[in-house]
Amino acid sequence: MAVYTEVSDDELARFIAGYGLGKLLSFKGIAEGVENTNYLVHTTRGTFILTIYEKRVDVADLPFFLGLMEHLSARGVTCPLPVRDANGHVLNELAGRRAALITFLEGVWPKRPKVEHCLELGKALAQMHIAGEGFALRRANALGLTGWQPLFDKFSARTGEICPGLHELIADELHFLQRSWPQDLPQGVIHADLFPDNVFFVDDKLSGIIDFYFACDDALAYDIAICLNAWCFNAESAFEPAKGAALLDGYDSVRPLSDGERDAIPTLARGAAMRFLLTRSYDWLNTPKDALVARKDPADYIRRLTFHQSVRSIADYAPQLIA
Amino acid sequence: MAVYTEVSDDELARFIAGYGLGKLLSFKGIAEGVENTNYLVHTTRGTFILTIYEKRVDVADLPFFLGLMEHLSARGVTCPLPVRDANGHVLNELAGRRAALITFLEGVWPKRPKVEHCLELGKALAQMHIAGEGFALRRANALGLTGWQPLFDKFSARTGEICPGLHELIADELHFLQRSWPQDLPQGVIHADLFPDNVFFVDDKLSGIIDFYFACDDALAYDIAICLNAWCFNAESAFEPAKGAALLDGYDSVRPLSDGERDAIPTLARGAAMRFLLTRSYDWLNTPKDALVARKDPADYIRRLTFHQSVRSIADYAPQLIA
Repeated sequence: MAVYTEVSDDELARFIAGYGLGKLLSFKGIAEGVENTNYLVHTTRGTFILTIYEKRVDVADLPFFLGLMEHLSARGVTCPLPVRDANGHVLNELAGRRAALITFLEGVWPKRPKVEHCLELGKALAQMHIAGEGFALRRANALGLTGWQPLFDKFSARTGEICPGLHELIADELHFLQRSWPQDLPQGVIHADLFPDNVFFVDDKLSGIIDFYFACDDALAYDIAICLNAWCFNAESAFEPAKGAALLDGYDSVRPLSDGERDAIPTLARGAAMRFLLTRSYDWLNTPKDALVARKDPADYIRRLTFHQSVRSIADYAPQLIA
Repeated sequence: MAVYTEVSDDELARFIAGYGLGKLLSFKGIAEGVENTNYLVHTTRGTFILTIYEKRVDVADLPFFLGLMEHLSARGVTCPLPVRDANGHVLNELAGRRAALITFLEGVWPKRPKVEHCLELGKALAQMHIAGEGFALRRANALGLTGWQPLFDKFSARTGEICPGLHELIADELHFLQRSWPQDLPQGVIHADLFPDNVFFVDDKLSGIIDFYFACDDALAYDIAICLNAWCFNAESAFEPAKGAALLDGYDSVRPLSDGERDAIPTLARGAAMRFLLTRSYDWLNTPKDALVARKDPADYIRRLTFHQSVRSIADYAPQLIA
């Protein structure tokens, strides 16, 4: 939960007036998102999300994120659409920070995703990848392969505070990943953080995808690998084959996977587990226990990584997809 | 800000289904209220607030609070209306706690109230007092005159941590209040916590009054005294006569004050300042500095109390109301 920046009624009313969205009716700080401050805003013209960008977001990246939402929305992806003000700008200033107003999407994210959710997710992810083609801006994946070793170096001396053997697990795995990372896979814009809390459903139908603030250019299949980790394990971090199969099957039905992508999925899944193991470990060691933001247990990703290490081919995730 | 109790999508969908309000479209935890958890809920039938009652609220009091909102709403006060479920209940269980669904009120609370806001507030407060007549339930004011000395006893040894001289100020003032507290004033249901964040406006017109979780039976004029403290001082805790006059004038135009009430206002204002000085001091000393809930500075109420001690009659608040 997070409302880091407080906004006064007068300030907000002036801000909203610049958008031609009618009269400000109400605004409530919402307890979602850990990076930015979000307000749910009602005006006489509808419901919007006001996002105030906090220090963890690089303002130089904002045109990429907001431009991507516009690009995807124009191509039929149900994602938030940044609203342009009277001067045509999507990025403005509020309370001394950068801020944007985006359309509100109805929907509820699934706390315990079901197989049907994973099928819908797979289709929507493939549609998003196709819709991303032709987006003009570029953004490297700061949390991709080349970022992992430097991030590990920041806390490698303290892994014992999380669990014994973690240092060796990460060091060995980083060595494997550097050696084995697949090259020449189809590239494009990926979401890179498509966890269940970023995907909305109404009546088990996918109603929207939100939070593009980790989006970047990378191998499209790496986005699938992230979703395998984020959606297809149960609360005890055991893999659920029916969900993995649904995710991959849904994706493949919209954008058929190449042979190279199929072969690469197990390694990409290990890499995705590593990326979240690293950031969760770093945050675990550097977030005060009583902080506003709940710390997420890195152990969930130790178990996922160990599972992926045991996988021999994509058939272990989804038997029907054997190349 | 506060979302103490997390609710899953399935749990909430089941809960909402019991109300016949159509399909659940979305819900967002909102960062308002320090006592309870609040979610903003969209269904196909409209917008609602879901309140989950946390430990600080005595569940035995909930029928009073919810019943009062129904009573006032039926008599034209724009306050949240508890929604009855298919069985006619307003109070249910969710995530192991008591919970209620209430109607959502549009409006924005004024961070820096203006004179016009105080005039509107005075009128609405008087209307609420009149509308409260005939409400069948009773609730004593736990934070009234008899509650102050026991509350002070809980932290009187630590007043030096707030400011030197505070012990003597409170002890002497409690002595004065015990001796001088007005009796025989008109009684009724009071809001008892009508701070700006509990009063919504759209276009400087009062659009709603919320948060009845301190409401109780007491002298009606004591509610005015609370508002004098909460609305009519500037950020430096200096009294603003135009706001005091507007508040009292607005009130008197709807429910004319009796001579006894006019005479009592300065003493009631001292009592109201004492009530918030005591609770803020207690919270200041007992809330960790890094807690989720921002601590409110007791010094604001030392300055208010000192001002009220200098007041000789209601004319010092509002010259036109001299009896």
